[in-house]
Amino acid sequence: MKNSYENHEVFLGEKNYKIFFGQNILENCNSVFKNYVFGEKIIVVYDSSLEKNHLSRLMTSLDGFNTNLIKVKSGEKSKSFYSLNILLNQILSLGVTRNTILVAFGGGVIGDLVGFAASILLRGVKYIQIPSTLLAQVDSSVGGKTAIDTPQGKNLVGAFYQPRLVLADLTTLDTLPLRQILAGYAEVIKYGLINNPDFFEWCETNGSDLINGDLGLRAHAVEKSCFIKAQVVARDEREAGLRALLNLGHTFGHAFEVEVGFGKKLLHGEAVAMGTIAAFEFSQRLGLCSGQDVVRIREHFRAVGLPIDISSVVTKKWTTDKLIHHMGKDKKTEGDNLTFILARGIGQAYIETDVPAEALRVLLSDLLLT
Amino acid sequence: MKNSYENHEVFLGEKNYKIFFGQNILENCNSVFKNYVFGEKIIVVYDSSLEKNHLSRLMTSLDGFNTNLIKVKSGEKSKSFYSLNILLNQILSLGVTRNTILVAFGGGVIGDLVGFAASILLRGVKYIQIPSTLLAQVDSSVGGKTAIDTPQGKNLVGAFYQPRLVLADLTTLDTLPLRQILAGYAEVIKYGLINNPDFFEWCETNGSDLINGDLGLRAHAVEKSCFIKAQVVARDEREAGLRALLNLGHTFGHAFEVEVGFGKKLLHGEAVAMGTIAAFEFSQRLGLCSGQDVVRIREHFRAVGLPIDISSVVTKKWTTDKLIHHMGKDKKTEGDNLTFILARGIGQAYIETDVPAEALRVLLSDLLLT
Repeated sequence: MKNSYENHEVFLGEKNYKIFFGQNILENCNSVFKNYVFGEKIIVVYDSSLEKNHLSRLMTSLDGFNTNLIKVKSGEKSKSFYSLNILLNQILSLGVTRNTILVAFGGGVIGDLVGFAASILLRGVKYIQIPSTLLAQVDSSVGGKTAIDTPQGKNLVGAFYQPRLVLADLTTLDTLPLRQILAGYAEVIKYGLINNPDFFEWCETNGSDLINGDLGLRAHAVEKSCFIKAQVVARDEREAGLRALLNLGHTFGHAFEVEVGFGKKLLHGEAVAMGTIAAFEFSQRLGLCSGQDVVRIREHFRAVGLPIDISSVVTKKWTTDKLIHHMGKDKKTEGDNLTFILARGIGQAYIETDVPAEALRVLLSDLLLT
Repeated sequence: MKNSYENHEVFLGEKNYKIFFGQNILENCNSVFKNYVFGEKIIVVYDSSLEKNHLSRLMTSLDGFNTNLIKVKSGEKSKSFYSLNILLNQILSLGVTRNTILVAFGGGVIGDLVGFAASILLRGVKYIQIPSTLLAQVDSSVGGKTAIDTPQGKNLVGAFYQPRLVLADLTTLDTLPLRQILAGYAEVIKYGLINNPDFFEWCETNGSDLINGDLGLRAHAVEKSCFIKAQVVARDEREAGLRALLNLGHTFGHAFEVEVGFGKKLLHGEAVAMGTIAAFEFSQRLGLCSGQDVVRIREHFRAVGLPIDISSVVTKKWTTDKLIHHMGKDKKTEGDNLTFILARGIGQAYIETDVPAEALRVLLSDLLLT
């Protein structure tokens, strides 16, 4: 097990910030906050599911700071314009200045909602991420992509807005259901598949123990994931190009999520897992990647218990046309080819701008038949 | 009268943009847009009051571009969370990509609303300002401050987000009521009072003719105002310090607006005019500025027809405490002094951080008695 105070720095020009991770980070928030908070008002916005086991750990540690609490209901529905409006009103009613600090204590939903609120409140106040799920610790809390959903789709309204600090306490994962751990682990694997074959190999060796609760392995996974993500984000914060690689598996996954209807039936990480397999199978069909690599990835997903194909969620209502529409790949004029994140092998993802539309159609038809 | 194609550039690091102003800018949008729009979808969001005289001028000129229209009702009420939600849904339903371009065609309300929408739509799309009021042309369309109002106050939610281009057609002012011209002119004078005594002198000489419709004088006022504002914004885009000078008269003015209730009873520019006088009287009382300067400013305001004191709007309900609360100056712990934009004379505004709270109280009591 690593020390409780490992830290890792994200470099984004003037917007550098540190990620602390380890055990008992919540209990030790006091000493970390002291370097970032100087008498300002702190507003802790937390996910209702943390009330039972973890909220008091954080708040006891922040005793002595000027803190206020706002509870937000668990679940994707809280990433709505409606919830944002309520949250902003609650925050403004507490009285804020440009020195007020928001704290997002929860998973990806809370991080996205509070980060976005911080970006627009008084045209920008500081915020600190305290991610409590594996998915948030390895992915969404780092990189400053914040957003809410609208009736037209997910994450269509938001901001690129970096936190001042990320504090990931691995012990918050102890109360997370196995299914949520697995969903987060799908994003961990992704980093290996994008540009780090050694890390994928490490996942193959250690994935099961990590999922079963080994703290040292979880610490390594968080460190490595944040490191890889930070490298990519530092080079392309606003996703003009390179950063799109982090969306490996997400175009397919997103289509599956829309078709199922966002919610507990299919978690984001599960959709990403299915989408990642689809992206690699697509790469293989296009002659980019060996069948051996695809088999190896499928084998690891199966070994740890991640879903591999869409058969568990697909219904007769699904059609190729609908999936293509959800992927946003139906707006091209005829003859145009499509852009996808594909791979030439494990750890060799890249942006392919010349994918024949017909190949996508054939792939999806086959997926729907299996 | 200046040529129709005067242009002025705002320098903000990588975010430079040009301001074009003159006559018949609307009719010539086509040739300007050609340098900024390359086949992308354009969504023109316009103030309903422009439908009668100016909308067709713009749209005829944009014939040949891929344009869509969205109408927004005139008035401050459109700067609400509610209107923002509707606007975002209308825009998203049209189908947008990160290359979509929004156009804000209207006064300060439309500019603030559309600029903010552009900043958060897909985490940021491009937008173009086509300000149609004097206030918007000399002030709000330049500098990238965008915002909406909330029940707690004005402009509390927003973003610093620069347009790609500002197009100010002076002929849109021809259909503007005199009162609106005067309200905008209050912001013109402000630039002279902040750091340019020569420009204030120019205002004294030319203010009345400008207000009465002289196009050449209006062009000069727009040019000079944008130039001074751009200089300040370039040095402090996010208002860490210097940019606050542009708020001269606004702290007092804002308190008056809140007390009257935002709307047609007291226009923003009128409140700023009263607030500017208050700020100079405050400076005089504090021994910073000569009585002669205050007399000279009052005299010019009176000459052009701008309101000078609050007697026209004040009621018995107004109290010193309420005004201090609206100014946000009631949250200090005892003994703390206050920060105000004050002046050592005409063209010598500065940020004073050591204003005794008691002096403010006495000033406001006196204002309420007059």
